[in-house]
Amino acid sequence: MPAPKLLYAQSGGVTAVINTTAAAVIQCAREHGVKVYAARNGILGVLREDLIDTSRETRAAIEALAYTPGGAFGSCRFKLGPADRERAHYQRLIEVLRAHDIRYLLYNGGNDSADTSLKIARASRRLGYPLTCIGVPKTVDNDLALTDCCPGFGSVAKYTAVSVLEASLDVASMAESSTKVFVMEVMGRHAGWIAAAAGLAQRTPDDPPHVILFPEVPFDRERFLAAVRRTVERVGWCTVVVSEGLRHPDGRFVAEAGGKDAFGHSQLGGAGPTIAAMVKDGLGLKVHWAVPDYLQRSARHLASQTDHEHAWAVGEKAVEYALAGMSGVMPVIKRISDRPYRWKIEAAPLDRIANREKKLPRSFLRRDGYGITEACRRYLAPLVRGEASPPFGKDGLPVHARLRKPRVAPRLPPWEADAE
Amino acid sequence: MPAPKLLYAQSGGVTAVINTTAAAVIQCAREHGVKVYAARNGILGVLREDLIDTSRETRAAIEALAYTPGGAFGSCRFKLGPADRERAHYQRLIEVLRAHDIRYLLYNGGNDSADTSLKIARASRRLGYPLTCIGVPKTVDNDLALTDCCPGFGSVAKYTAVSVLEASLDVASMAESSTKVFVMEVMGRHAGWIAAAAGLAQRTPDDPPHVILFPEVPFDRERFLAAVRRTVERVGWCTVVVSEGLRHPDGRFVAEAGGKDAFGHSQLGGAGPTIAAMVKDGLGLKVHWAVPDYLQRSARHLASQTDHEHAWAVGEKAVEYALAGMSGVMPVIKRISDRPYRWKIEAAPLDRIANREKKLPRSFLRRDGYGITEACRRYLAPLVRGEASPPFGKDGLPVHARLRKPRVAPRLPPWEADAE
Repeated sequence: MPAPKLLYAQSGGVTAVINTTAAAVIQCAREHGVKVYAARNGILGVLREDLIDTSRETRAAIEALAYTPGGAFGSCRFKLGPADRERAHYQRLIEVLRAHDIRYLLYNGGNDSADTSLKIARASRRLGYPLTCIGVPKTVDNDLALTDCCPGFGSVAKYTAVSVLEASLDVASMAESSTKVFVMEVMGRHAGWIAAAAGLAQRTPDDPPHVILFPEVPFDRERFLAAVRRTVERVGWCTVVVSEGLRHPDGRFVAEAGGKDAFGHSQLGGAGPTIAAMVKDGLGLKVHWAVPDYLQRSARHLASQTDHEHAWAVGEKAVEYALAGMSGVMPVIKRISDRPYRWKIEAAPLDRIANREKKLPRSFLRRDGYGITEACRRYLAPLVRGEASPPFGKDGLPVHARLRKPRVAPRLPPWEADAE
Repeated sequence: MPAPKLLYAQSGGVTAVINTTAAAVIQCAREHGVKVYAARNGILGVLREDLIDTSRETRAAIEALAYTPGGAFGSCRFKLGPADRERAHYQRLIEVLRAHDIRYLLYNGGNDSADTSLKIARASRRLGYPLTCIGVPKTVDNDLALTDCCPGFGSVAKYTAVSVLEASLDVASMAESSTKVFVMEVMGRHAGWIAAAAGLAQRTPDDPPHVILFPEVPFDRERFLAAVRRTVERVGWCTVVVSEGLRHPDGRFVAEAGGKDAFGHSQLGGAGPTIAAMVKDGLGLKVHWAVPDYLQRSARHLASQTDHEHAWAVGEKAVEYALAGMSGVMPVIKRISDRPYRWKIEAAPLDRIANREKKLPRSFLRRDGYGITEACRRYLAPLVRGEASPPFGKDGLPVHARLRKPRVAPRLPPWEADAE
């Protein structure tokens, strides 16, 4: 009889360090003598029985994987419905796991994924299949409940602070006769964590970013334009950071693009140019805007060492929890102290994480709503510390893992949804 | 009688390494016992007699300056008109230089600046003031004539190739159920050098970027959409890099924003979202787009070592040429060999650089117009090699120079244009 296997799957938007977690899972499981399969494209790969045997990857490849952005095995945006409505999906999942003697499922994602993990854990119990189901945290949005922070966030935070700093030096040097206002749009659909991270670049009130527009603070056009005008008068120029999730007081997104994703979220990506146009029209100032979009969450070349260590640790602990049979939990980061920064990993129940969203606490927002407080800075500061870049090749480009990703021979008929 | 002084001024859009040149000028002049003044905000600072005494900066500050993005002394977009129409401007410039016994002018900029340097050189001769005028190359656009490449370009090239590589890993991992097409807009008003640099990320035909849209190739919507569709069918996703200067066959910019800058150039910045919308509407695929804007030209954290060395060398040589009395020249980069990459600095006459624009040679464009050739790759490859990041502080952010920038006491009445 073959040894029980562990299945690792990636879900939702990827990060600069999700593969660090994958590498930790694979290495740690290997050390415990457990074979790791990875699902291609997350839960879709399980439904399709499209599984990758990671034991065929070299140790060097797994080490390189720890420094490679993106989701090496493919991720997905696919929402599993309620078990009573989508019984066939859950049955198929369990069938696939059973066919390959997979006893451990590690699902690496955000709060939607925590919910999915939980549903699979329940389905396995209901269907009498012994499965240990572990959620593994990951999201640039930093909005997971219970964990002090989320792997992926520290690196996008570092990217954002560094980019604001650098671009603002550019603006400062040209402002006398060119661009006076620079607007940078950052990710963060409902929570302003990434926008807040931009605040780390500001050391004095005249340093950038001068105005941060958070999704937590209803947008007030006139007050905003007044703040920009005052800054330009005082400093000579102004850097604005705007969250993609900025909303009008009535709840509408400032940049409403119209589309919806598989989870029913609106698709965004126009807050930056919208705000820039307001400044141009309202104040008659020359404006430039930037929307780094995926660049920010894939910027492994600027990854934070703290984030890298978190991502590795949750992968390692997830394997340990799995082997200890602790189903329905997620390894989360618990902060012990700010200065010096100390932390540990704890197990937290998935049902207290699933479908919840951690917003920026009120105490992290400056009274005027356009900046961060000292408490926020104390929280954020350790997360961007240290550099964990990949090695660069002789060609001047980062060296990323090239995996073989051999497919495990299927043992079941094709999945009906695909076969149709 | 005080020793003759050298005046250094920055002009036009800044780069990740223009301050490297500034640092080289200051250090090299110090070694020759020549005092360096810097004009605040380029030529405007000369007209206003707003000069900075760099001898008050510490050696450590100048060393940090070599790794600081932006233009430390301020740059400007201000076009000096023809000498016969704007005689007063030229007279004032020479008066200011004379008042401070400035005998060497080093003007660090692009082709507009080469033209300005030349006009000042001629005006000084006409007005009988002994001035040695040197142009110092700088531009992310890489479009200066005579020089093999321009300091500033290698770093934006590296930023672009790395960003395309990283973001594409993100897209690849999500494409199955999310974004299928990623569009990244890059700078380059009339010449597609930066767009071409994205091509360095492509090792095989299935690697990104799959389609590059150059300003040199008139845009054909249907042919473009067909290329994207074929790529998505073959690879599963598609990365498109589009130059801000992409044009329709009739010459109109694909993203016409309407404004004009001081040089009469159109202000751009919307080719990315425009192309993205075309893909969405034309092919019905989910699209994301990024516009890094100033982030790309200020990304000192990702600067290329080759670029850093070029930037230093032109600064050093500019001082040597100045002290040798070689007025009306620019130190340019001459390539000796591709492999191994060898180069030297030569003096080139400003009148053969001013107001010219070096476009991508036809031989660098793939026959289909959507990628680069092996010849282009051979040209670009050495320029992005090596990493010349600034040191990072304990706070996880790059350490930039903080200069004192003391103003030299004016000796003349205020400039009329400011006094009015």
